[in-house]
Amino acid sequence: MNLSGRTLVARGFHCPDGTLDPFAELAIEIGADGVITRVRRPGADGYAVPADAVRLPEGTLLLPGFVDLHIHAPQYPQLGTALDEPLEVWLQRYTFPLEARYADPAFAERVYARLVRDLLASGTTTALYFGTVHLPATQRLAELCLELGQRALVGKVAMDHPETCPDYYRDASADDAIEGTRALIAHIRALPGNDGRVQPVVMPRFIPACTDEALAGLGALAAETGCRVHTHVSESDWEHGHVLERHAMSDAESLARFGLMTPHSVLAHGNFLSDSDFALMKRHRAGVAHCPLSNAYFAGSVFPLRKALRSGVSVGLGSDISGGPAGTIWETARMAVTAARMLETGVDPALAPEARGGRPGARIDAVTAFHLATRGGAQTLGLPVGAFVPGMAFDAMLIDPSVEAGTLRAFDGETGIRLLERVLYGTSKPNIARVWVQGVQVAGMAR
Amino acid sequence: MNLSGRTLVARGFHCPDGTLDPFAELAIEIGADGVITRVRRPGADGYAVPADAVRLPEGTLLLPGFVDLHIHAPQYPQLGTALDEPLEVWLQRYTFPLEARYADPAFAERVYARLVRDLLASGTTTALYFGTVHLPATQRLAELCLELGQRALVGKVAMDHPETCPDYYRDASADDAIEGTRALIAHIRALPGNDGRVQPVVMPRFIPACTDEALAGLGALAAETGCRVHTHVSESDWEHGHVLERHAMSDAESLARFGLMTPHSVLAHGNFLSDSDFALMKRHRAGVAHCPLSNAYFAGSVFPLRKALRSGVSVGLGSDISGGPAGTIWETARMAVTAARMLETGVDPALAPEARGGRPGARIDAVTAFHLATRGGAQTLGLPVGAFVPGMAFDAMLIDPSVEAGTLRAFDGETGIRLLERVLYGTSKPNIARVWVQGVQVAGMAR
Repeated sequence: MNLSGRTLVARGFHCPDGTLDPFAELAIEIGADGVITRVRRPGADGYAVPADAVRLPEGTLLLPGFVDLHIHAPQYPQLGTALDEPLEVWLQRYTFPLEARYADPAFAERVYARLVRDLLASGTTTALYFGTVHLPATQRLAELCLELGQRALVGKVAMDHPETCPDYYRDASADDAIEGTRALIAHIRALPGNDGRVQPVVMPRFIPACTDEALAGLGALAAETGCRVHTHVSESDWEHGHVLERHAMSDAESLARFGLMTPHSVLAHGNFLSDSDFALMKRHRAGVAHCPLSNAYFAGSVFPLRKALRSGVSVGLGSDISGGPAGTIWETARMAVTAARMLETGVDPALAPEARGGRPGARIDAVTAFHLATRGGAQTLGLPVGAFVPGMAFDAMLIDPSVEAGTLRAFDGETGIRLLERVLYGTSKPNIARVWVQGVQVAGMAR
Repeated sequence: MNLSGRTLVARGFHCPDGTLDPFAELAIEIGADGVITRVRRPGADGYAVPADAVRLPEGTLLLPGFVDLHIHAPQYPQLGTALDEPLEVWLQRYTFPLEARYADPAFAERVYARLVRDLLASGTTTALYFGTVHLPATQRLAELCLELGQRALVGKVAMDHPETCPDYYRDASADDAIEGTRALIAHIRALPGNDGRVQPVVMPRFIPACTDEALAGLGALAAETGCRVHTHVSESDWEHGHVLERHAMSDAESLARFGLMTPHSVLAHGNFLSDSDFALMKRHRAGVAHCPLSNAYFAGSVFPLRKALRSGVSVGLGSDISGGPAGTIWETARMAVTAARMLETGVDPALAPEARGGRPGARIDAVTAFHLATRGGAQTLGLPVGAFVPGMAFDAMLIDPSVEAGTLRAFDGETGIRLLERVLYGTSKPNIARVWVQGVQVAGMAR
């Protein structure tokens, strides 16, 4: 069901500005280029729905597509495993050996094609991907996104530090890291038919994995090419302290001084960002990919989301495949709510409530989680998606509660936030009937 | 695919004694009554697989069925909603009005039939259900479990305290609560064809909702009828303190002195149980339904699972539909691992690690979560299920990673704990190909 050039009449939800806007019946006019031209409530101001409008089935719900701001594409085969290992073991015994396998183009093809299809089928219409150090595999990932219809930002991982990266999986030099990134940027931008739906990013793995020379060169490259940067920042006590010791400034400050905080850059995790770090990021218009599931295993803490939002920094959600054990934004959004509650109260019942290490006021609700998953993530990237508003591309998903094989059940004619909550917690893949990117159906039932 | 009287050859996992026992090829002989008679590794000790053995498809994995120790059946229609409301509002505005609707037998039929089917399709082969105060609806729930093939324990909720329960939804008197429970016990035990697969439980909602007279009468009834008891215990600071104030002893001590801690009774939550409470429960052979998702919203803490296990108390898992927002043990088991990690580290990154309110050593791994979900839960109830061992009923599920509509992907020939982890985190309903209870297939693909 391609909707470019069509008018759609649907029931559903979006969060254009952070508050929940449920619509019982909305007419969405989509241009031939997949961009929304007009949005109207039928009957309002004498608006008449075109006779050939597409009416979505009774009971279904239209949502904006999800934005996943942090995915390690090569780690998909190990999703869910070895999370009880310390970071160093997890990296050296599992993750680096797995990422090294993407020197094999057949392996890369098999995994990446599977991943992109799976994410689209789960409603992830925009994905920000870490690749590997391998240029061919990363180029192929970008091509697959283009072919399969996903909106994507893709980076070739830069990691040249001989002390922290294994010899068998590392950029041989800072120059290799920089030039490889340059080549990826050129390749993605020149892909036939790529009107900007797939974009390159500059991608130092994180400061501990890169020499100063690589960091500086990548920052210069980001400025030269106008690319966003995607990396990790202040994820854990260890990582935050490591950069402080090495560079005598915070992780965020060091990224900024290397030029690695270009507008709409996305920094993953950020649990240990300070108030001045947040102010710095806001000035640079960089944002955070909040990865609540991964944080439980690797960050020893919950990201101070409310504090970040109050500071004015943009925030979206990241699954962090495979630091996080779940493959989609659905589980991530749920955990954002759950983790914020646990941050609010603290965790150990053996301590008195006031001594339990909680942070009053930390909680968020389902609306905030839904916003982060859609328009919030899009704003972080600076992309015109994430809500049903004129000028935005029609990236969306159709939720069907009537599917026997699904898990979302409708009993009662719930509406508003209560309905959004049921959808957020209850939806699984069989309930996602159709997915569109730029007006074109890219996943779901027969087209 | 009914397996009573057949021999099955399968690959899979179980945890008969707490450690992971993966099997590449296991022959499971099942009697005509659905009870396992013999288990052999083909080729070991000259054992020859019968010619007419059923061989499960290549790549599929056999697991014991899940045990869900805490489900509020009537709350299924509100699953996922209103979790940001304080308990008092959640109860009075949403939960009690919803439970009151089960005076309508048509509503009860619609919801309960849907719930039992959904749980079976998700691999919950044994379920411990809270009903409502209504005898007919609760009787019907038990009948549906019997008809649809689920192993179940069902209770009619006793709640007679005029100060904490609304007039429109409450037992009119202690005597009504007690006699209604007596009637339910008799009804369930007399159901035609019920060989014990569906059993009644004595079910005070929790101490705050019951008068002392009701509690004492229900305790006497439990002794008289030999029933297990199912209720909540020490879920939150408020609830734990309420009982301390009212009865000048802990929640667990009060339950025990009323006779409400019969063998294999299940107490939900238990976050604030003390060491002496655990010792008391162990002496009485009562166990805990650990509900990690629900606790994040209503308990302000993480259950001290490691402490409970070290004390020798039996523990299993509970979804706590709808205090918990997820409908199955899959999400619950995942959260058990995640929450234990968060208990270990504490949560607020603004505090120094040693001041973060964590509990060193609190973590559990996927094997422990899997054990709790299967044999652990079964041991808590005292039921001969949860592992593939002679004398146990064949309650099981078949996982298929090859299903396009699913979310579990196989890439690599993973084995052992790494494979279990992938299955635990990656499985969704389309991957659950078949489900059996007592050797009879009760859900999944065409029989």
